[in-house]
Amino acid sequence: MGVSFTAYILDVLTDSVYPARITVEDGVFKEITPISVCEDTVIDVEGLMLPGFIDAHIHVESSMLTPAQFAKVAVRHGTTSVICDPHEIANVCGIEGIEFMIDNASSVPFNFYFSAPSCVPATLFETSGACLDSSDIEFLLKKDEVVALGEMMNFPSVLNGDVEVIRKLELARLYGKPIDGHAPLLSGKELDKYLEQCIVTDHECTTFTEAIEKKQKGMKIMVRDGSSAKNMEALFDFTQRITYLKNQDSFGIIPTEVLERRIHSPIFDFIVTDDKNSKDLIKGHLNKSIKKAAEMEIDIIKAIEMVTINPATHYGLDAGVIVTGAKADYIIIDNLKDFNILKTYISGKCVFDGKNVLFDAPQIKAKNTIKTTKKNPEDFEIYYEGEECEVNTIECFNTELLTQKTTAKLKCKNGKIQSDTNQDILKIAVVERYGQNQIANAFIKGFGLKKGAIASSIAHDSHNIIVIGHNAEMMAQAVNKIIDNKGGIAVASENFKDSLPLPIAGLMSNEDAHTVASKLEILQKMSSALGCKIDNPFMTMAFMALLVIPSLKISDKGLFDCDAFEFIDVIKN
Amino acid sequence: MGVSFTAYILDVLTDSVYPARITVEDGVFKEITPISVCEDTVIDVEGLMLPGFIDAHIHVESSMLTPAQFAKVAVRHGTTSVICDPHEIANVCGIEGIEFMIDNASSVPFNFYFSAPSCVPATLFETSGACLDSSDIEFLLKKDEVVALGEMMNFPSVLNGDVEVIRKLELARLYGKPIDGHAPLLSGKELDKYLEQCIVTDHECTTFTEAIEKKQKGMKIMVRDGSSAKNMEALFDFTQRITYLKNQDSFGIIPTEVLERRIHSPIFDFIVTDDKNSKDLIKGHLNKSIKKAAEMEIDIIKAIEMVTINPATHYGLDAGVIVTGAKADYIIIDNLKDFNILKTYISGKCVFDGKNVLFDAPQIKAKNTIKTTKKNPEDFEIYYEGEECEVNTIECFNTELLTQKTTAKLKCKNGKIQSDTNQDILKIAVVERYGQNQIANAFIKGFGLKKGAIASSIAHDSHNIIVIGHNAEMMAQAVNKIIDNKGGIAVASENFKDSLPLPIAGLMSNEDAHTVASKLEILQKMSSALGCKIDNPFMTMAFMALLVIPSLKISDKGLFDCDAFEFIDVIKN
Repeated sequence: MGVSFTAYILDVLTDSVYPARITVEDGVFKEITPISVCEDTVIDVEGLMLPGFIDAHIHVESSMLTPAQFAKVAVRHGTTSVICDPHEIANVCGIEGIEFMIDNASSVPFNFYFSAPSCVPATLFETSGACLDSSDIEFLLKKDEVVALGEMMNFPSVLNGDVEVIRKLELARLYGKPIDGHAPLLSGKELDKYLEQCIVTDHECTTFTEAIEKKQKGMKIMVRDGSSAKNMEALFDFTQRITYLKNQDSFGIIPTEVLERRIHSPIFDFIVTDDKNSKDLIKGHLNKSIKKAAEMEIDIIKAIEMVTINPATHYGLDAGVIVTGAKADYIIIDNLKDFNILKTYISGKCVFDGKNVLFDAPQIKAKNTIKTTKKNPEDFEIYYEGEECEVNTIECFNTELLTQKTTAKLKCKNGKIQSDTNQDILKIAVVERYGQNQIANAFIKGFGLKKGAIASSIAHDSHNIIVIGHNAEMMAQAVNKIIDNKGGIAVASENFKDSLPLPIAGLMSNEDAHTVASKLEILQKMSSALGCKIDNPFMTMAFMALLVIPSLKISDKGLFDCDAFEFIDVIKN
Repeated sequence: MGVSFTAYILDVLTDSVYPARITVEDGVFKEITPISVCEDTVIDVEGLMLPGFIDAHIHVESSMLTPAQFAKVAVRHGTTSVICDPHEIANVCGIEGIEFMIDNASSVPFNFYFSAPSCVPATLFETSGACLDSSDIEFLLKKDEVVALGEMMNFPSVLNGDVEVIRKLELARLYGKPIDGHAPLLSGKELDKYLEQCIVTDHECTTFTEAIEKKQKGMKIMVRDGSSAKNMEALFDFTQRITYLKNQDSFGIIPTEVLERRIHSPIFDFIVTDDKNSKDLIKGHLNKSIKKAAEMEIDIIKAIEMVTINPATHYGLDAGVIVTGAKADYIIIDNLKDFNILKTYISGKCVFDGKNVLFDAPQIKAKNTIKTTKKNPEDFEIYYEGEECEVNTIECFNTELLTQKTTAKLKCKNGKIQSDTNQDILKIAVVERYGQNQIANAFIKGFGLKKGAIASSIAHDSHNIIVIGHNAEMMAQAVNKIIDNKGGIAVASENFKDSLPLPIAGLMSNEDAHTVASKLEILQKMSSALGCKIDNPFMTMAFMALLVIPSLKISDKGLFDCDAFEFIDVIKN
């Protein structure tokens, strides 16, 4: 038997609100009958009923939580569905990792959809745990849970017509699954060529102008509001929107009063997070983004549609709308202004009652994916015969993924090149962790550590172990702690040591969001205590291994010049 | 080599206008580059560039023109694509008729898409020329030109789970082609059940309330602006929209200023014509509807989107948008206020230069589909022994498809029941024309003819020959003229005779829109001269044979009580 109640429904199909009697049975909306409200009408539900929110592009691994633990925190914020691209675990464990994600996701009452990671590994200049070729992609696209081909980051290969890349795109079209894009700053004729492949979405727009060009060329724009990349500020910027409309006005084609109504239009299609760490996630998810959009003078109902009906329609999900016959995923909020999530329902069942989440996440017995031997301090030394040496150095900047290529003159002691805290030059290394036991060492400027070392098994995209430190001894200690923990994050100094184990693929914890967030907080404070000047040192460090973003990076195979796309020596002649 | 020019583009993706350099090559937009406009910038195209318009639901046969002749007049009004449901010819000629439409359509530079007619024949209580079963539907759905399953009018069978009907719906889903609906006044639980079959569109809404219910249940609403049904007045009605918003306001959930912006929202999805006769068609098509919508305070750009990007997205057409890589179907208008179509381009080629249409329609050598022998006046008599007789009578009303069941007392002469102009009771007959040579005779009230007869081989949906007249002699003359003409419309009286031959399936002419329209005009004037009180006598007469619309109708098999869904005798007792 179903349950029946009256409520005000926010209808994303007509941009309106109406009171209705709703019957939910077998997890679906069995009947929705509009009612008229007079003085003595009792509306059972206090607040407003909305479809549950959908994050159309997220890498769940970035939260360091298992899908099940992620779901536990997401439902608190009104999220009922996500399309996750298991790109990170795919780089570590391939198909097996993706199947773990699907399996773990199915253990909780939450809608996890997946995209097939299209670019594993990111480059051939690093050792990754897996490679997904077109036959793997076909295997994934056949799965019901897989609703899209994941972000096609490898746009140079799309433009060059690389056979395997083109085959993956063809397969997505063949299986009728939309293709997600990822093409930062791609423009003009190159963008046209990229779009010939029916790549439809983009979540990498960082300027209003970039987003408008892509939108005008037919892309659906995902406005990203994540932990690292926050593009809502640019894409919803009031001044830019006004300027854009003023420019329209000067053509004299669209009547001014029509343009004035456009001021509150979001113009773009979805709001997504892409990456959201646990610290941010416990504070909010798309609910926070909607509120922020409204503060930026976006029509709040249009903002809600960007995380409900819009993604549901694009990806063909049974979600995002309250209609008879649809899956009964819905939330109750207090009102459109305060926007507090009072309750969350999935398939008609309450999963968050305003206080507690009403399901559990299973503990995972993960197998060890850190296949490397313990390290000695010597493994982190660079040897040089002489008193002083000039080295190519990565220069990094707070909150940026881009680095610069610089040089530094460093002293040598006992044949080993020393770090130099006066110049803020530290040692950096990537420790291969898939069984080949190689280490690449180099130098980095900008992290600010005065002593100790920080290390992590999260290092995009191949997730070898990355470590930055003042000296080899502490670097070895930090890395060995991670090896002991079967993955994770570690801080080591003469005075203190601590770590967050991430035993699941070296990417995810078995703990809940609060535990992970508070441990991460402690580790960040320790890094600061060691002198670190970077706001999110582990995240920034993780991107020092991402070779596709300029200018100088490091993989387990060596120091890499991203502009020339080739390895370079650490020591200059 | 392509052509290159500058123009202001109305961009339906961002609801905006921008100046750009456009290169068209091989029929597609090869490159579109936004340009900045300063004082000395020359914009080559005077006026505004829009995507060509799409009529997402039309029965081309209603224009009495071949697809090719239809295209010739449609391009004058900025239409570049139609989705036509060849339901009429399918009732006459089955698959062969649909293939003729597809073939004829391909002879002109115009985008004809088709839906597979789902309900042929309309009922089993009439003789039709064909029956399309589920295997025929599958044959059609496999064709590239067929983009949807045509309007599912047989909603009682959908609700009852009729095996063949359900199979047709399953096939559409299997082939991934959207299903068009047709469910006038269907509401509540019955509507819910109809929608379970993934029937998505409806073009039959006659009231704002009906349309809102269907929209809230997830249907896409086609606002119909045709020759007979004109629903724009109700669905875009300013007062009703305001009332709807005021009602919203009383809930106090959506801020008033947000509601105020909604005043100009069309709420619904597409504008279509369904049926458009030649007389109307030569005056305008969707261009006229857009202008009318704007006069009803609908945001004109949103109205344009209802006939461009919206239908293109829903049916997956390469149309409706000006983006790189898309088919170069576009039009030039003078401005958004006057909305005159200056030029029309299809696949980059000019097909209407503001004065002339730049392609020809082929002459069709149609085979005769009127398979019946010449009639004698006696065939149109109803015999009765007695002086006076009470008969069941169809009562019809101007501009309505609905009829009422009434009775009349009529005099008899030489054993034949006579019409009675004092009571406005005329004779009506349906002459079977598929080779079985049967005739059904009855009486009709409301047409007003004082003498003569009018006849037509357009009689929904089976298109037997229908005739209304003062006496049997004139009825026979009118019907025989149609038989001579291999189909068409005819007027016969003691003083004058004239006809419009429709030799193609008895539905379409070989002539152009102007010729057909002016001949139709003459025949209507003749009918008026004979006393006819009905505005569009041939159209109204055509619906007297449509058994699915209440209350009393006539097929070639007899007088039909649509409410009881059974035949009744003409003579009472």
